[in-house]
Amino acid sequence: MCAPVVIETVRRELSRRGFIGAVAGCAAAVPPVSAQPQPVRMPKGFRSVFDLTHPFSARLPVYPSYKPVQIRQRFSVVRDGFAANEVTFDEHTGTHFDAPSHFVAGGLSGDRIPAAHLIAPLAVMAIADRAAKNPDALVSVDDLLAWEKRHGRLPAGALVAMDAGWDARANSTDRFVNRDAKGVMHTPGFSEEAARFLVGQRDIAGVGVDTHSLDAVIAVKFVAHLAILGAGKYGVELMANLGRVPPAGATVFIGAMKHDGGTGGPARVIAVV
Amino acid sequence: MCAPVVIETVRRELSRRGFIGAVAGCAAAVPPVSAQPQPVRMPKGFRSVFDLTHPFSARLPVYPSYKPVQIRQRFSVVRDGFAANEVTFDEHTGTHFDAPSHFVAGGLSGDRIPAAHLIAPLAVMAIADRAAKNPDALVSVDDLLAWEKRHGRLPAGALVAMDAGWDARANSTDRFVNRDAKGVMHTPGFSEEAARFLVGQRDIAGVGVDTHSLDAVIAVKFVAHLAILGAGKYGVELMANLGRVPPAGATVFIGAMKHDGGTGGPARVIAVV
Repeated sequence: MCAPVVIETVRRELSRRGFIGAVAGCAAAVPPVSAQPQPVRMPKGFRSVFDLTHPFSARLPVYPSYKPVQIRQRFSVVRDGFAANEVTFDEHTGTHFDAPSHFVAGGLSGDRIPAAHLIAPLAVMAIADRAAKNPDALVSVDDLLAWEKRHGRLPAGALVAMDAGWDARANSTDRFVNRDAKGVMHTPGFSEEAARFLVGQRDIAGVGVDTHSLDAVIAVKFVAHLAILGAGKYGVELMANLGRVPPAGATVFIGAMKHDGGTGGPARVIAVV
Repeated sequence: MCAPVVIETVRRELSRRGFIGAVAGCAAAVPPVSAQPQPVRMPKGFRSVFDLTHPFSARLPVYPSYKPVQIRQRFSVVRDGFAANEVTFDEHTGTHFDAPSHFVAGGLSGDRIPAAHLIAPLAVMAIADRAAKNPDALVSVDDLLAWEKRHGRLPAGALVAMDAGWDARANSTDRFVNRDAKGVMHTPGFSEEAARFLVGQRDIAGVGVDTHSLDAVIAVKFVAHLAILGAGKYGVELMANLGRVPPAGATVFIGAMKHDGGTGGPARVIAVV
């Protein structure tokens, strides 16, 4: 038997394709238009689009303080005529935004960050080769200056992001969190000096990483978080595909949730060239 | 002595009023950088940025099937050294995205919409004057053709959005949902013909509204939803500030959540010119 909505979908599909006859039995095996893979078209004015967002699922690694996202079906098309889920998450899970209030009492919450600051020139610091050998690798001031030597001064309002090659580990919590035999985590991040240089000597909007923390986790004092968020800048963590985007010249859009008093939250992060 | 909470309150108050001096005997009243209002800077390459997103709070009206967002503090800076909330919502609340799977069994889920389709030329159909007189007003094929007469053919990959002036009602659920004495809701939307024209005769990416539904609610059969989502296009609902953005020429970024099998979800929607 075919539920009415399925039949309706198939009818539309048949009519759209110009078929005339009805299919015997349940024709739902014809995929509805809305389920077919979409041919990807570039938006006008842009050459390339890069999705820097991990699929947000219960399988994605989370920082030890947090729970994985929970997605629970509340309504279904067959039963209710429409489908909808209830979603529950801790703010700092998935590809996500860090507002100053995440680490600073009285700091700016995510909903108060101006939208204009969520569109930023993207500068990628590529340290994946180094991080493959040393998981405690840090983005240093020297890395920032080497980038500037090649691409010019870091643009005003930039998002400065670390590509440590960590997104390739996102299918394994063990490899992503990367604990040693004593249980100590080892993941790359920004050095305190680099973080202070960016907020003190340059005019950035925020700092991004492909790990779960702006700080190398071995730096248990959250020195990079405190320098960056303490200066009123934002963070973006668990970014994907930073190795595919040009190191300079892209513009990134940070679709940060705008919920009341948020200390951060899942963000759809998309770069364009 | 200043209790931490009092200090924080004073900090916020000082920051808001722009006072300079610290309060005698309570030196911590100097506001942290991260709490200061940020001077807004336009991103390079753009003249204007428009936040088309309502603040997502429990006060924002929701469609009758759904619950308001719940935001619960799990960690606080004073107690834990960092702050984080747990957030729970029904997907179709706040300024949000509708994936085809919201109304079509087997339809494309939000996480499978290509990122390139979330960056779209924005075409605004301004019907606020008409909707102020008649809350059952519909965006018609004539409205679409009148827009084209003025601005040229609807651009390929566009988000075609209705500005019914409904965002001004977002501070009142009664006015937003707009029930009559018999309990029937009256809110504007796209006519079935206009929806079918957009997906059949033009090459759009999606359809947006500033109400809670692509359909005028009096059209209880969800004819616009079925035409749009059934064709594999997406919806954006509860948009804000559509009356401020130019009716043609803007580009909109739809920062839709990318959670597993989502039928939609809160989206940060930002337009640039």
